[in-house]
Amino acid sequence: MLKNTTLSLLLCLPGFALAAEGMWTLDNLPRADLEQAYQFKPDQKWLDHARLASARLAGGCSGSFVSPEGLVLTNQHCVIGCVSDLSSPEHDYVNNGFLANKRQDEKQCPGAEINRLESVSDVTGRILKVTNGLTGKAYNDAKKAEQSRIESECVAGAANTVRCDLVELYQGGVQHLYRYTRFQDVRLVFAPEYQAGFFGGDPDNFNFPRFNLDMGLLRVYENGKPARIKHYLPIKSAGAEPGELVMTLGHPGSTQRLLTAAQLETLRDVMLPFRLMIGYEYRGLVTQFASESAENARIVRSDLTNIENGLKVRSGQFKALLNTEVLTKKRADEASLQAYVQSDAARAAQFGNPWADIAAAQAIARQSVVRYQMIEGGLGFASTHLNYAKSLMRAADERQKPDGERLREFAEAGLPAVEARLLADVPVYPNYEKLKLGWSLTKLRERLGTDHPFVQQILGKKSPQKLAAEIIEGSHLADPKVRKALWEGGQAAVAASQDPAIMLMREIDPVARRLRAEYETEVESVEKRAAERLAAARFAQKGTTVYPDATFSLRLSHGVVRGFDEDGDTIAPFTDFNGLYRRATADEPFNLAPRWTAAQSKLNLATRFNQVTTNDIIGGNSGSPLLNANGEIVGLAFDGNIHSLGGAYFYDETQNRTVSVHPAAILAALKTVYGADKVVKELTVR
Amino acid sequence: MLKNTTLSLLLCLPGFALAAEGMWTLDNLPRADLEQAYQFKPDQKWLDHARLASARLAGGCSGSFVSPEGLVLTNQHCVIGCVSDLSSPEHDYVNNGFLANKRQDEKQCPGAEINRLESVSDVTGRILKVTNGLTGKAYNDAKKAEQSRIESECVAGAANTVRCDLVELYQGGVQHLYRYTRFQDVRLVFAPEYQAGFFGGDPDNFNFPRFNLDMGLLRVYENGKPARIKHYLPIKSAGAEPGELVMTLGHPGSTQRLLTAAQLETLRDVMLPFRLMIGYEYRGLVTQFASESAENARIVRSDLTNIENGLKVRSGQFKALLNTEVLTKKRADEASLQAYVQSDAARAAQFGNPWADIAAAQAIARQSVVRYQMIEGGLGFASTHLNYAKSLMRAADERQKPDGERLREFAEAGLPAVEARLLADVPVYPNYEKLKLGWSLTKLRERLGTDHPFVQQILGKKSPQKLAAEIIEGSHLADPKVRKALWEGGQAAVAASQDPAIMLMREIDPVARRLRAEYETEVESVEKRAAERLAAARFAQKGTTVYPDATFSLRLSHGVVRGFDEDGDTIAPFTDFNGLYRRATADEPFNLAPRWTAAQSKLNLATRFNQVTTNDIIGGNSGSPLLNANGEIVGLAFDGNIHSLGGAYFYDETQNRTVSVHPAAILAALKTVYGADKVVKELTVR
Repeated sequence: MLKNTTLSLLLCLPGFALAAEGMWTLDNLPRADLEQAYQFKPDQKWLDHARLASARLAGGCSGSFVSPEGLVLTNQHCVIGCVSDLSSPEHDYVNNGFLANKRQDEKQCPGAEINRLESVSDVTGRILKVTNGLTGKAYNDAKKAEQSRIESECVAGAANTVRCDLVELYQGGVQHLYRYTRFQDVRLVFAPEYQAGFFGGDPDNFNFPRFNLDMGLLRVYENGKPARIKHYLPIKSAGAEPGELVMTLGHPGSTQRLLTAAQLETLRDVMLPFRLMIGYEYRGLVTQFASESAENARIVRSDLTNIENGLKVRSGQFKALLNTEVLTKKRADEASLQAYVQSDAARAAQFGNPWADIAAAQAIARQSVVRYQMIEGGLGFASTHLNYAKSLMRAADERQKPDGERLREFAEAGLPAVEARLLADVPVYPNYEKLKLGWSLTKLRERLGTDHPFVQQILGKKSPQKLAAEIIEGSHLADPKVRKALWEGGQAAVAASQDPAIMLMREIDPVARRLRAEYETEVESVEKRAAERLAAARFAQKGTTVYPDATFSLRLSHGVVRGFDEDGDTIAPFTDFNGLYRRATADEPFNLAPRWTAAQSKLNLATRFNQVTTNDIIGGNSGSPLLNANGEIVGLAFDGNIHSLGGAYFYDETQNRTVSVHPAAILAALKTVYGADKVVKELTVR
Repeated sequence: MLKNTTLSLLLCLPGFALAAEGMWTLDNLPRADLEQAYQFKPDQKWLDHARLASARLAGGCSGSFVSPEGLVLTNQHCVIGCVSDLSSPEHDYVNNGFLANKRQDEKQCPGAEINRLESVSDVTGRILKVTNGLTGKAYNDAKKAEQSRIESECVAGAANTVRCDLVELYQGGVQHLYRYTRFQDVRLVFAPEYQAGFFGGDPDNFNFPRFNLDMGLLRVYENGKPARIKHYLPIKSAGAEPGELVMTLGHPGSTQRLLTAAQLETLRDVMLPFRLMIGYEYRGLVTQFASESAENARIVRSDLTNIENGLKVRSGQFKALLNTEVLTKKRADEASLQAYVQSDAARAAQFGNPWADIAAAQAIARQSVVRYQMIEGGLGFASTHLNYAKSLMRAADERQKPDGERLREFAEAGLPAVEARLLADVPVYPNYEKLKLGWSLTKLRERLGTDHPFVQQILGKKSPQKLAAEIIEGSHLADPKVRKALWEGGQAAVAASQDPAIMLMREIDPVARRLRAEYETEVESVEKRAAERLAAARFAQKGTTVYPDATFSLRLSHGVVRGFDEDGDTIAPFTDFNGLYRRATADEPFNLAPRWTAAQSKLNLATRFNQVTTNDIIGGNSGSPLLNANGEIVGLAFDGNIHSLGGAYFYDETQNRTVSVHPAAILAALKTVYGADKVVKELTVR
């Protein structure tokens, strides 16, 4: 039930009618709308401060700087990989949580990287110039080379502290260069117990009402010391009230709202069912593996959470695409744009028929995408060892080439990140690796067929399990020193290696590269080239009142605190600690972490815990601060509700909601449940 | 490569142009076509003999009588359930095979039943009379009551030896009464090793070329002695040559060729993806369980084979429905029939708009089918104990009611089969049951939602695993004596039972019954009522040149021995023993059973092993004999090729093939590999 009927009625006033749709770049906010609806007029200083206080976790999350000494607030589920890497059977930080009471107890997250966006510049013109008139492979090669060139110029030799990413907005219609400060020394300060951060587990994931302390704290270091941070955000314990403007500031990963109907049909018919079927089977396998021992459960906890999260996301997306209204609306929008293009001879000549080009590429994608994903995408070779082998081998090969001719992920500007990931000292578990690789090789055989020449080449007369055992038992790539030697030894060292993972990858590589080249040429280049024209036509028709699809780059979404209706019930916007204790049971995933059981009598149980707002976010936004108009943190986004999963394709304000941790809960839990007084002080003393 | 080019050219002659499509009832064969194409004119004697020599395995397979002493030829995969039930860690017949050299070594298959079709009569008029003008629940109740009445009259108190089934042909357009002799004492005579019967396992399943001795032999007993059988089929060792007419005679389970486009879309969008996702996850779970020990592997072998087979079938069906040509053709057919109906005012009045009624029912089915399948369909309660509990509880309740008012499966005429299944002494494995039930309860929670009132009612504060452990550890229903006491004690005994499986089922039952009543009223009745009108319209337009959808009742399909083209390669119609030894590896599922390794030097390796023919079959046809025009067995159907999986919805003669064991391989293997001289003698001495 709604707690405050008066406020809920207020939400219906005309003044609040601005739709919350849109993941806006900071240089193209819907300023007139924001002013009209909320009297909110951010000046450049406000925007610069927000940008510089925003943190991007390169692994795929968002966050914000929250102290002058480099403290970064994000989600527990964004630091769980690090927590898992730092854990062992003796120190199970995943299940017990982690708190560094002193600076020297803060532990470095292997391979972690945090970025701060320093500047954005438009390089569309440079790309258009070199790709003018080209198609297919020539287009792709020219664009790739220029993108690498632009990035290298931007990094200017300071790759260890500068990161430059070419960002293709509007499905390629606009090319921006994002220049980041790169922090590669990232340390763990605080993570709650898995049970507390992910209370309710998979059943409650993407649901609301919710009761999660899905928060984590990291600290960025420079030269072995906490970084000095000028732009950081204060936390407002009182949060925001229903109807109040709240903005997420973060890095939404990927949406497909500008795809054509033909592309959505490929997702619905081929890509999503394929990934779902693979994913569900893998989940069954890993679930049973986890049930075999407490140690197995610990080993796979983070992976299993990711798998289940991915399944829930894709299930929601699949369901959204089965809603015929979505495709009907998409086709109507396309018809309108087509009519606009064709109504004028010059426009018709300029833009042509990108829809037809995209539809033709879909026929190829439908035939080849599974093979491509299994082989080059690595779904048929799920193994940490083989991932290392592939990176080492390809890096060695690619680094021999001029920057512009390399595979994009080995462009000079990005090598520090590749190296950091490769050399990070993370635990590898042989039995789990054998399970993954053996199983994924059976999927390779299943999807391509036993008699497929590639399958015959890889397996020969061996069973998938036997080949997997040979690779995992014979490979030494789990040892970071071995990887370091191969990385530093370059092509000669890799060529001389008899490591079975590298030898297998060398066999796979020609086929994988060929599939990639074909897919990029016949599908992706065609789609991009067409998308450029679509974007141009759209700009011609509507100007830049359209926001680009998400690209894991900085965006702001605006919304308000507001509940929603579900099956006739009204879901109130806030939960409280009381609700947690009511929902708790003795068993996973609804059991309480011991500290929470102990703290029950000491907490104010009416403290607001989680909340929903109408902000338009998507995966990647996890860890985003919710800001009020004053730039204060009034929430920590960690999820969407179940209706938000269609957000990949469309935004529906009636039910799509962002789920966040209330700031009051953050501070109360740190203080009362965890006794993290120093952290609280750092967060609150200005 | 084709072995005989001359013959393959012959296949292109005009005389061979008859499409092999159709699963024909014996009273409505395409006689003119058969005569024109093959000069085949079966008389009534031929047809009666074929009918009486055909065996239906009530569990879902086909077979044929092959000796005067009750020997029944079918597939290994049709007897594997029995073999598994008869196995133990000490006697692993699944992996080692089974051969009874003496009559007294033949072992009774628990719960098995074989039927022989004695007569068919048309009762459409009786059903139409009682359902005239009714819709929804009233229609359903009236029809059900009359069907039960007809069956009971037919059984006439001899339920132990007579089985009568109401068969709804043409999706309900025609109602036939099938009267069978019921054999409930069925004993295992021979089954090859799992490796030999299912060589190539899941990877080769539905593939061709193929190398399987997928055969099994049963014997029906009467009064403790082998039944005397008058009508049985001889085996022709030489088989049939390419282009020669071959007919399958068996019991195809279910096709959906007469469904409307709207119904196919429901399958494509909702039902198939749902079952696939559930199935893949379950497969992952069981695969890992099997890997934990040899005993686990033995326990689940038969189940896992079924799961994987089902996944391959449904994947093929899903893929077929994604082929836009299928739905386009379906819509064109519908448009033609609609035009025929609407072109005449009397017809329009008579048939109305059944397509619209069906489409409306789909909207309800899409919303409710998952809930219905999880609860009443039992997918949320996967447990042998709970299945027993449900049968015992419902049988007790239903047997109190007049026959015509009971749930269909508890009609008086069918009770002997229910009793036989309930009381059969089959092994139950507690750890596996806990795994299945715990997992399926998590799926129930996942699909309905943690906060769904039914989920809350069933789980309360317990985890799925805890509830599963309580049920499996506390229930005594694995003991056939306990089940017998409850079955015989009837409603009073069941009501007094404190068995946790029965107590849980009692809680589930009201919800499950309500969902079933709703689904039957709002979806199935509407579909059936509309299908009756569709069938009538179709008969009016085309006469009975249409064959009915498969209904696990006796059908004949005609075809020829013929290879097919695949990705530009020509696949020859026969394989031989040589191919088996070439394909073999050291590892499952391509390893040889030891007897086959030992026999290699003694076999004529050029012996034909498996073959493909153009016959139109589907699951349920497994074990069907392939007959030549003389009524001799020239093959033992056990599979379709991968292209046959679209056969649920359409038949494509260019690639859809039946896969069968060649009779020469059957006889050579029995003699040389298994030394089954007595069986060979019984099969061959006339």
